[in-house]
This record gives sequence, structure tokens and C-alpha cells, in this order.
Amino acid sequence: MAELKWGVLGCGLISEDFVRAMRQCQHKHKVVAAGASSTQRAQQFVDKCELTGAKVYDYEGVLNDPNVDVVYIGLMNHQHKEWCLKAFDHGKPVLCEKPLAPNYKGAKEIVDKAKEKKLFFMEAFWSRCFPAYKFLREEIDKQAMGPVKSVFANFGLDILGENRFNADLGASPLNDIGVYTVSFAQWIFRNEKPEKITATGKTVNQCDRWGTITLEYSGDRKAILIFGGVDFTPIDGRVTCERGRYDLPENFYCPTRVIRYENKGVIRCNQRKIEKVDFNFDNFENDKVEYNFMNDSGLRYEADHVYECLRDGKLESSNASHEDTLRIVQITDEARRQLGVVYSQDKE
Amino acid sequence: MAELKWGVLGCGLISEDFVRAMRQCQHKHKVVAAGASSTQRAQQFVDKCELTGAKVYDYEGVLNDPNVDVVYIGLMNHQHKEWCLKAFDHGKPVLCEKPLAPNYKGAKEIVDKAKEKKLFFMEAFWSRCFPAYKFLREEIDKQAMGPVKSVFANFGLDILGENRFNADLGASPLNDIGVYTVSFAQWIFRNEKPEKITATGKTVNQCDRWGTITLEYSGDRKAILIFGGVDFTPIDGRVTCERGRYDLPENFYCPTRVIRYENKGVIRCNQRKIEKVDFNFDNFENDKVEYNFMNDSGLRYEADHVYECLRDGKLESSNASHEDTLRIVQITDEARRQLGVVYSQDKE
Repeated sequence: MAELKWGVLGCGLISEDFVRAMRQCQHKHKVVAAGASSTQRAQQFVDKCELTGAKVYDYEGVLNDPNVDVVYIGLMNHQHKEWCLKAFDHGKPVLCEKPLAPNYKGAKEIVDKAKEKKLFFMEAFWSRCFPAYKFLREEIDKQAMGPVKSVFANFGLDILGENRFNADLGASPLNDIGVYTVSFAQWIFRNEKPEKITATGKTVNQCDRWGTITLEYSGDRKAILIFGGVDFTPIDGRVTCERGRYDLPENFYCPTRVIRYENKGVIRCNQRKIEKVDFNFDNFENDKVEYNFMNDSGLRYEADHVYECLRDGKLESSNASHEDTLRIVQITDEARRQLGVVYSQDKE
Repeated sequence: MAELKWGVLGCGLISEDFVRAMRQCQHKHKVVAAGASSTQRAQQFVDKCELTGAKVYDYEGVLNDPNVDVVYIGLMNHQHKEWCLKAFDHGKPVLCEKPLAPNYKGAKEIVDKAKEKKLFFMEAFWSRCFPAYKFLREEIDKQAMGPVKSVFANFGLDILGENRFNADLGASPLNDIGVYTVSFAQWIFRNEKPEKITATGKTVNQCDRWGTITLEYSGDRKAILIFGGVDFTPIDGRVTCERGRYDLPENFYCPTRVIRYENKGVIRCNQRKIEKVDFNFDNFENDKVEYNFMNDSGLRYEADHVYECLRDGKLESSNASHEDTLRIVQITDEARRQLGVVYSQDKE
């Protein structure tokens, strides 16, 4: 495959970063079409991101363009389902931003239709395409420090704007941010089904503000996840194994560093070997383009991953399979149920 | 006060470390009496720790020695109450290891008797005497980065030996280890009463193995605490404020470092100023004595704190007041109730 030709649906901040990151890909990518709520807005996007030769459309126009190989959906969360389904109806493979759908029912519809139409589909769990995640995968698979015992992740932002606490739009910190912590745990535990899910936290007007999710896996293994939208907490992930642990000390969802600790003693707690493994991918600091969100230059890995999946004729990603996507939303649905968070889409 | 003369009850590992740490105190301390289950065992302790001139006794003997100014109780957890009460009956002030008592009822008996006898009493929350904790106290009191929003702490050890999972002895990771996380939160929130307590976790044979405790304080402030006795997790504490956060990145219960992060932006997550503040107190690495437990050289701060309290005629510690001690055990009692952990002492 010489070049992968993208159509972009939604011309907001995340779409800007996605198309910018493509310039640093290993494979050849080209944005050939952009669709927004108005063609004027799409034109602004194309100009701003210097997407030479890209055509501008409303949303539907992108799907009608025969030149588009694959569609990237960077729309608002509550618009994902409608446009995934329409893209499949137009015979287009899809990479769709997470959270894919507000609930399992919506996610299942999307996955079912992708299967039915035999079209590639992936939920944009970009973290899993990062070199740091691949490193973790290899370390854990070979049990470099013994079997995994616990996963911890904490992700809280001080989200300005009450539109992020809007159950009517299926928007809440749990689905916006908490989903990253669940995805991290499920990545480490290789998409195993937790035996028990426990969620606690605070809700206001039927929308979660912050909380914890505990996932219990067989054999006394667990994940303890913390998320929130009310203050700027540590954003880190840690994996405890029998003989040591791995820390993703900053921005675990788009990490550039893994720290490996090896247990040397237990009671004294201080006898540990520390090794830092850095993945600076061309140094973010030197990126010539400005990104809207932290480390979004790393979206290049996701774009290249989709390239390889399509080149190899795959219908699913090995980094985020359909089953994986569905299990994660099952977990967040159960967490929401326990927290008492009801989205308007749950009533449909 | 020229010299504070200590009697030590219990000659185990923690008592060894406590008397060793005294050698590095600012004030003058002397161990004049040691009591163990046998005088032979007390003699071994005195010899090993080079406590020249210290007399050896059984437990009662220490309390009868008129030369003893204050008693340090380093016995097993389930023996604390009996010997605190006896010490007070003998007119001795007490510093007693934590957890003070398995439940509120036991702790209340001890505190009530100390008050009744007008004798100094402190539960050994040694963390709170560390320079790093004093630094945090000052920073938070002056709202250097705005009001506190959240506290996080994680403390898990791979505890070998099933005697640490023994509800009959009032021994469980929650009381052994989890109490440090609760104490940290209550220190930051200045002993405020949480409005809501939520505990989740795993229990086997009515004993907790690991869990989380969420404390909700007025005004949308919270502490999320993780504890366990089944694997060697990160042992860190973090305090999130409106404009930044403080990390105690290693061994938050006996810390030598605080890292201060200042928020510079929210969405990009990466614009933070970092300042490390180290409290190396004479470099642990160069300590001439070997300690049994991590950073136990820092027990010196607690010994000096007790010296100052007694010198100044105080009956309570400002670092761990009676009310503070009682509130912490109320919280762990409620957490145990939710987890379904019942100690034999609860049935008395």
C-alpha cells in the first residue's frame, strides 16, 4: 500500500492533532477529505493544518468521496455512533475516538455493523500503540519480574466547563477520562474478564464527578483505578509484579517513560534497583508543530498502526480488538450502574 | 529537663530501631529499663543495642522502676491496651506504637485513662514528627498552592506470614498498614471529621487482604487511600491543591523528599514547574547503625517530640492528639465494618 488516504469527520482540537501527527509517521498518510458541521469550518481546518489538496465537505460528503480509504471520527462523543454506522453503510473502514459509545448497547451496534459489513474498525485507544506500551507488553508477557499482581492508575483533570458533566450527552469524567484507566488495566491483564467490579465515588445530578473502580481478576489479582473531573491529580499508572514494578510516572495514557523497580527486600522497603527506560520519539520538545493536547505527537503511532492493519487486510486491531472495546464499555457501564450515573442514551 | 529516661516494653525489631534512633536525637535521652517476656530476652536486647546501664525486667518490672520517666510500648498490637492501662496505673506517661488498639472502644479506654490519670499519652504516629510533614503542614496552612482538593496514598506490602492476617489478634493490613494512609489524610485535613466513609476490598476468613478507603470531606474535598498486605505496591502519598500538588514519592510514612508541582496549564497537562525539597537528615546512607525497617533513623524526631512535650508539661501531642487518635480508629472501624472484618476484640 503506497499511501493511506484519510477522510476526517469533525474538525476540532483532537482532529487537528491527529492530522498534524501524521507528518511524523513511518508510513505514508494523506488527508484527502475533511468534513465539519459546515464546509466553511472544514476549510478553516484544512487551511490551519495545511492539508494541501484535501477536499472540504459536510460530514456526509466525506463518506461519499470515493478517494477516502479510511475515516477518522473525531466528533463529539455523543455523535460517534451515528457516524460510525453511516461510514460503514458507505463502505468505509473507521478509526473512532473513544469513548466509542456511551454504553454497551451503542458500542455493540457499531461493532456488529463493522463485522456485518466486513470493514476494519478500531476504537482509538492510541495509548496502546505507544512504544512504552509495547515495552510493557513484552516485559509482562515474558514475566520479566514475575506475574502481575496489581495495576494502579490515577487520572484526574480540573475540567473547566459543565459540558463535561452532562449525562444527557453521555459525557462524564468516567467515560471521558476513567476509560483510560480501565483500558490500561485491561491492556495489562490482556482483556481478561474481571470476576468482580466495584465502583465508588461522587455524583451530582446523576453525573459522576470522581470515583474509584476496583477490578478483581482470578487468582487475587486486581486493578485499582481512580478518575475524576474536579481536580488535577497525578496522571500515572503502575504495575506491580511479584518481583518488582513498572511505573508510568507521568501521563500514563501517552507515556514517554517507564521506570522499572526491582524488589530487593520487603521489610526494609528501600532495596530496589531502578532503571529508567525512555521513549522520547524524536523529542516532543523539538516538534515543529504545536499540539493542542499533551504528547499528541504520539498519535502518529496510532495512524501507522491503522496503516499496517489495513495493509495487512485486517478487520480488527490487535491493540484494541472488538472484544476488548466491548469489555471495556461493559466495565464502565457496570461502574456507572453502581455510581447511579444514567445517560440519556441508556433510556433509548 | 536534662535527660529523658525511657523504659521500653517489648524488645522486638521496632524497639531496637527506636532506641538506636535516640542516639541521633537533639535532646538527651537514655534507656534506663527494658522489659520483655523474659529477662533473658531483655538482656539480649540491652546487649545488642548497647544500652549501657539499662536494667532488665519482665514487663511489669519496667513500670515499677521509679527511675523511668516515660514508657515506650513496642509490644505486639494486641498487647497495647493492657500495658498502656497498666503503665498509667503505675503513673507512667506513654508513647505507644500504632495501631493503638484494634477498635475505637479499646482506644477510648486508653485515652480516657490517660486523661483521668493526667498522664502524657501519644500514639506513635512518628511520620508526623518528620521534617517533610512539618514542611507540608506549613505549606498547606499558608495555602501556598491554594486549598487542598484531594489526598491520595498507597501502601501495600507483600507480608510474609499469616500472622499478619489474623483477625483473632486484631491484626490485618488495614490496621497494620492502612492506618498510615488514614493518618496521612487526617494530618492533611487537620483532623476534620469526614462526611462520608466508603471502603471496598477483599477479605478472606473475615480478614482484609487489600482495599480502598474513600473519605469525603465538606466542600468536595476527598482522600482516596489504598492499602494491602499481598503485594509490594508503590508506597506514596500525594496532595492535590487548587494550583498544584505535593508528592511524597517514596515511603510517604517516613519521607525524605517532597516534590512540588505547580500547575501551569490544564489541557496540555505538561506545563508544570517542579521543585524537589529534600530532608535527608544526616543521610540515612551514612548512619553507622543498621535499622530493621526503612528510614527508622527518623524515629529520632518522635523521641525528641516526646521529650519536648514532657519538658513543656503537655499531656497530649500536637502532632497526634487524643481526638486525632480516636478519629482515626473511628474511620478504620467504619472501614472494617463495611469490609466485614471482625476482630475478636470487637466481641468483648
